[in-house]
Amino acid sequence: MDDCIFCDIAARRAPASVVYDDDRVTAFLDINPVTPGHLMVIPNEHHALLAELPPELGRHVFTVATQMAAALRASGLPCEGIDLFLADGEAAFQEVFHTHLHVIPRTPGDGFTIEASAWLDPRPTRADLETYATAIRTALADEDHAARSDR
Amino acid sequence: MDDCIFCDIAARRAPASVVYDDDRVTAFLDINPVTPGHLMVIPNEHHALLAELPPELGRHVFTVATQMAAALRASGLPCEGIDLFLADGEAAFQEVFHTHLHVIPRTPGDGFTIEASAWLDPRPTRADLETYATAIRTALADEDHAARSDR
Repeated sequence: MDDCIFCDIAARRAPASVVYDDDRVTAFLDINPVTPGHLMVIPNEHHALLAELPPELGRHVFTVATQMAAALRASGLPCEGIDLFLADGEAAFQEVFHTHLHVIPRTPGDGFTIEASAWLDPRPTRADLETYATAIRTALADEDHAARSDR
Repeated sequence: MDDCIFCDIAARRAPASVVYDDDRVTAFLDINPVTPGHLMVIPNEHHALLAELPPELGRHVFTVATQMAAALRASGLPCEGIDLFLADGEAAFQEVFHTHLHVIPRTPGDGFTIEASAWLDPRPTRADLETYATAIRTALADEDHAARSDR
């Protein structure tokens, strides 16, 4: 796609510190990293959102991310843990609309924090959770019905 | 495994608000959610860390997480975006040592934030990034060599 920096990186039209690529995905260093070695794994094809990513391609992105996690742990860079993070949609902090999976090496005290104010307080009751679960199960059943109707 | 709450949930020995399960994975509501509808997808088998998860099972966990993301967007619960998050290791905020992938519905202003202090400041130079990339590529080559030697 025109004007997509990740398409440009996948096609090697833009500079990037690439650590892995194959015909379907590219893994490269984030230029605005949380920690040294922070990577992103992208599909080479342009897909803005997770829902648009073909399932088999999504599985390959995840597999490569787990391989990158293992490599980071073995790399000698500071890495005692790994966070995988995928932001899907502007409300979820997605900034580049070419879906991408972050692979972030972590050490204790590295400064990465998730705000505690985020957690629901008070915690939902079991009845609340069952209300949410019913809404989600209904949506799943509708999707399943739609998928069967499409056959 | 004994004394693993997620093994107990997968085996239905412990209560949980389950929204999806099959013979390999279970998806259920987090009892300490960031937002209403916050789910986790777990393998039914006990695997403490990502590196211990068989690749095909990891791929299925990811596929089910993307299906859950679509269901959350269609559920009527507040959801304008989705974060997928997997914490691998205590340094990465893993709390239950049975690997699990969070699926978090997001809306603007929902209170979930990642601390800006986390980002490296100043940003690394291209030379810094290439130094990290070389360490990671070397580790990948070593893994690949080890894997070939195992054949």
